[in-house]
Amino acid sequence: MARLPISSFSVPKLKDLPKDVRARIKLVQEKTGFVPNVFLVLARRPDEFRAFFAYYDALISKESGLSKAEKEMIVVATSAANQCTYCVVAHGALLRIFSNNPLLGDQVAINHRTADLSPRERAMLDVAMKLAREPQCFGEDDVEELLAHGFTREDVWDIGAITAFFALSNRMAHLSAMRPNDEFYAMGRTPRKKSG
Amino acid sequence: MARLPISSFSVPKLKDLPKDVRARIKLVQEKTGFVPNVFLVLARRPDEFRAFFAYYDALISKESGLSKAEKEMIVVATSAANQCTYCVVAHGALLRIFSNNPLLGDQVAINHRTADLSPRERAMLDVAMKLAREPQCFGEDDVEELLAHGFTREDVWDIGAITAFFALSNRMAHLSAMRPNDEFYAMGRTPRKKSG
Amino acid sequence: MARLPISSFSVPKLKDLPKDVRARIKLVQEKTGFVPNVFLVLARRPDEFRAFFAYYDALISKESGLSKAEKEMIVVATSAANQCTYCVVAHGALLRIFSNNPLLGDQVAINHRTADLSPRERAMLDVAMKLAREPQCFGEDDVEELLAHGFTREDVWDIGAITAFFALSNRMAHLSAMRPNDEFYAMGRTPRKKSG
Amino acid sequence: MARLPISSFSVPKLKDLPKDVRARIKLVQEKTGFVPNVFLVLARRPDEFRAFFAYYDALISKESGLSKAEKEMIVVATSAANQCTYCVVAHGALLRIFSNNPLLGDQVAINHRTADLSPRERAMLDVAMKLAREPQCFGEDDVEELLAHGFTREDVWDIGAITAFFALSNRMAHLSAMRPNDEFYAMGRTPRKKSG
Amino acid sequence: MARLPISSFSVPKLKDLPKDVRARIKLVQEKTGFVPNVFLVLARRPDEFRAFFAYYDALISKESGLSKAEKEMIVVATSAANQCTYCVVAHGALLRIFSNNPLLGDQVAINHRTADLSPRERAMLDVAMKLAREPQCFGEDDVEELLAHGFTREDVWDIGAITAFFALSNRMAHLSAMRPNDEFYAMGRTPRKKSG
Amino acid sequence: MARLPISSFSVPKLKDLPKDVRARIKLVQEKTGFVPNVFLVLARRPDEFRAFFAYYDALISKESGLSKAEKEMIVVATSAANQCTYCVVAHGALLRIFSNNPLLGDQVAINHRTADLSPRERAMLDVAMKLAREPQCFGEDDVEELLAHGFTREDVWDIGAITAFFALSNRMAHLSAMRPNDEFYAMGRTPRKKSG
Repeated sequence: MARLPISSFSVPKLKDLPKDVRARIKLVQEKTGFVPNVFLVLARRPDEFRAFFAYYDALISKESGLSKAEKEMIVVATSAANQCTYCVVAHGALLRIFSNNPLLGDQVAINHRTADLSPRERAMLDVAMKLAREPQCFGEDDVEELLAHGFTREDVWDIGAITAFFALSNRMAHLSAMRPNDEFYAMGRTPRKKSG
Repeated sequence: MARLPISSFSVPKLKDLPKDVRARIKLVQEKTGFVPNVFLVLARRPDEFRAFFAYYDALISKESGLSKAEKEMIVVATSAANQCTYCVVAHGALLRIFSNNPLLGDQVAINHRTADLSPRERAMLDVAMKLAREPQCFGEDDVEELLAHGFTREDVWDIGAITAFFALSNRMAHLSAMRPNDEFYAMGRTPRKKSG
Repeated sequence: MARLPISSFSVPKLKDLPKDVRARIKLVQEKTGFVPNVFLVLARRPDEFRAFFAYYDALISKESGLSKAEKEMIVVATSAANQCTYCVVAHGALLRIFSNNPLLGDQVAINHRTADLSPRERAMLDVAMKLAREPQCFGEDDVEELLAHGFTREDVWDIGAITAFFALSNRMAHLSAMRPNDEFYAMGRTPRKKSG
Repeated sequence: MARLPISSFSVPKLKDLPKDVRARIKLVQEKTGFVPNVFLVLARRPDEFRAFFAYYDALISKESGLSKAEKEMIVVATSAANQCTYCVVAHGALLRIFSNNPLLGDQVAINHRTADLSPRERAMLDVAMKLAREPQCFGEDDVEELLAHGFTREDVWDIGAITAFFALSNRMAHLSAMRPNDEFYAMGRTPRKKSG
Repeated sequence: MARLPISSFSVPKLKDLPKDVRARIKLVQEKTGFVPNVFLVLARRPDEFRAFFAYYDALISKESGLSKAEKEMIVVATSAANQCTYCVVAHGALLRIFSNNPLLGDQVAINHRTADLSPRERAMLDVAMKLAREPQCFGEDDVEELLAHGFTREDVWDIGAITAFFALSNRMAHLSAMRPNDEFYAMGRTPRKKSG
Repeated sequence: MARLPISSFSVPKLKDLPKDVRARIKLVQEKTGFVPNVFLVLARRPDEFRAFFAYYDALISKESGLSKAEKEMIVVATSAANQCTYCVVAHGALLRIFSNNPLLGDQVAINHRTADLSPRERAMLDVAMKLAREPQCFGEDDVEELLAHGFTREDVWDIGAITAFFALSNRMAHLSAMRPNDEFYAMGRTPRKKSG
């Protein structure tokens, strides 16, 4: 078995990167314990790197009507529809962690219809999958469906915008044959005990 | 989040099952440490149960030109194409174990094209995926492609027959909303040390 | 025009086959008047042969809530979706015979939506086609639809299991380029007179 | 089982039709022994009727570089791709008759890839199927492929134009739920003896 | 950039054409100011030319329950589904002119779901698109949908027949790599002032 | 005919926007003569707005190995594949202008295979379309194809990244039912005279 590299494009050395890019990478390393490959693979184009993570922060890092777990569900389901190994593996880990459910990452990736989800979550993913795969069919009836499940219009925008951002993300990963870090595969596979 | 049951059909009690069916279930329990749900879900129809596992044994349990890991690759890739949660989760575990590679189950399930595979393994999965998804397009050129990668005609039959059997298996799992045992998700996630 | 052989794999001689396999073949020959090629093509792997026909008997030969004609409708419609020449031709003949309707085999094979079917039969085939082609979309709503047309849950299992078995069968036929016997094409093309 | 009518639209009485339309219908009746339903179903719009059969005559009835059997192969294969019951049943009969091969109608309808065809016929149908299903992908490479199999550019036009005409024909049949005459199903099922 | 010719097949000289074909071409030239390439490309087969334009006249040129703009909407939407450059460009011009709306040609070609259409027009195009792309799924429920929007059964026939005719037309254009005249692109891009 | 609004979400007033967002909008208005609706529709989320246009500038506004016209070809072809009215109409105008070819916007939108393109441009769009529609199939062979047509690896990144960015962009437009400004439809429809 061949072990593939982290990118099919050249990967810059950290020391050659602009200061702010390096700072962003250092930050994630401290928080996560390692540098997720997406940071290294995209760093070769600093302006695109900055825009990518600014967009990511605006959608994923900021507080919103969607929970952290709900956001990761959208990422995992739509990235699986695009067969994006990097995003499914990395965000599958985050979904396990944020939901404190070691089964949910795989369930949502393989078939969201049979995952252990609430009707609200199922409706959210049905619409996200439509926008991911047949965006031309998205319409006001999809918005109505989400409102009927208790989402606000701002939530609808978040669901759509996260789906849209990972449509980009998945394609950057396919373009560069981006390899997920080995660490992601095993993360969050044991549920945390509830404190008390 | 709702936790779904192991089947949408009734599941018989072990004590109500024919002796040979019970014996088969006891055997797998001793070997695996738990009873994979597929045994419980299919047991309600003993004749179908017997035929299903006789077929399984003839293709998967017996020795052949394909390694155990290669067989599981076929199962995982084609079951993922059918979004079959049971088969991907259960056989993903077996693939990790037989390949002694904790990454391979997820890689093959998400996108076999970007998995850490040899050209031979990639060719095998390309043909299996075609037979799974567009069986009407399978032809002698696919056989030639496999022979060119060192497979024998008997290996080709094995690759095709395993794909065919899981086309059945996946549909039985979808029919019954078959739920994978929680145990499968975490199995084989740490590579075994090489003895010596 | 080239006349293709009955299989792209080697076909064993009857005298070289295990006794029980030979007996099964003799039985069908006596009943049908000729040996359907599927018996000869699969006989090269006696264990798989036994499992295949045990499964077939459990689903097709045994009595159940579905009529013989209904079972053949499922086989013909789903095999046509997979463009499986062997199964459409052989089971088209059986459908003509069991329904005593010389048109129904072709109608169901070409487009079950425009065949002369009752609403119950149409609903049955709609669900079978979904499980054949997009098994990941099969769900409890499909079960409900069938129950609403008077099927029992056991009937639903039969409909699903027959579809699943022919998903296997069709792929074995494509794998081996299995050729239907010439006899099947013309069988059942004249309706039987009603006795009395 | 419900027996569907020959059209979901009103069908005019013969006596109410313009003289030339009636004459055309009488002609086919004398030749075939019955009136194929397509004549009755389309007669409600005499101008469209005239244009339809003028087009049909220009492509199918006239002599050309393609044999009568080759033309019917194109009609049957592409109509099967559109699941058009009328055209597959009616032209399947003509294909059996013109090829003097009682198997070929069903073989081409179910899967032209596994039919008893010469490489030239197979190439012809591969291109016709592309133009029928993904016309936007047809290109000069398809023309080259046909020329390499001995077709002339005029033959290519015929292949394409017949495919195009039945793209129309199939849709008129679906629009009107056009029912094939019962007679077609059994025609040509016994090969004619060779004279001499 | 290469400028492609008007056809990949030979184009006859006007003087070599039969008198009636030449007369038809002269007529359109006088009316339009130039000869649309479809006339020149199809003229090489006079019988097919005559049938084609007789059909066109019966469906498009004659008065019917559909407005001229509605007919062109059907042509543009279904031709765009087939990615037919000739028909989208030529009939996009006619749609702009007949609707006196310089935006509508492009809107309907790109995505009829987001075009400035009435519910009646949207319903008409939804059904036409189904018949164009999945004709086997067209059924009585589609007819009912159109009747509910105020169309008559004769209108339904027109909608279906126009869709069917352009299924042919689009394939002839793809077959011959038919190039739209440059003039069409700019026609109707400025709305006419209302007189009075 | 209903005239749809510019967004299905609320659109903020210019005076309520952050200063830098307003400045960006003023800039484009001065350059273009009007405010393209994408600026108004996205402004409701200033952080996303900033990231979106920073990304846009990094890919589209900066100099690179691709010409301005080549970039717009990618945008138009892939946005048409997603049936995105906003992007096809707005960038179709830019493509006409940058290529100084009034036909190219429509040609590329309808079917890039039949557009007046060089082999290099055709190859570029073939790969971009694959990444847009089946990103999971993109691979090193696509990179090789582009290199063979004279593109550098940096150009390949540009082609892929522009495709990826518009996968996002198209989905934001579908999410918000973003309406193109009327002005775009007519822009660039007359070729500029060459100075001299």
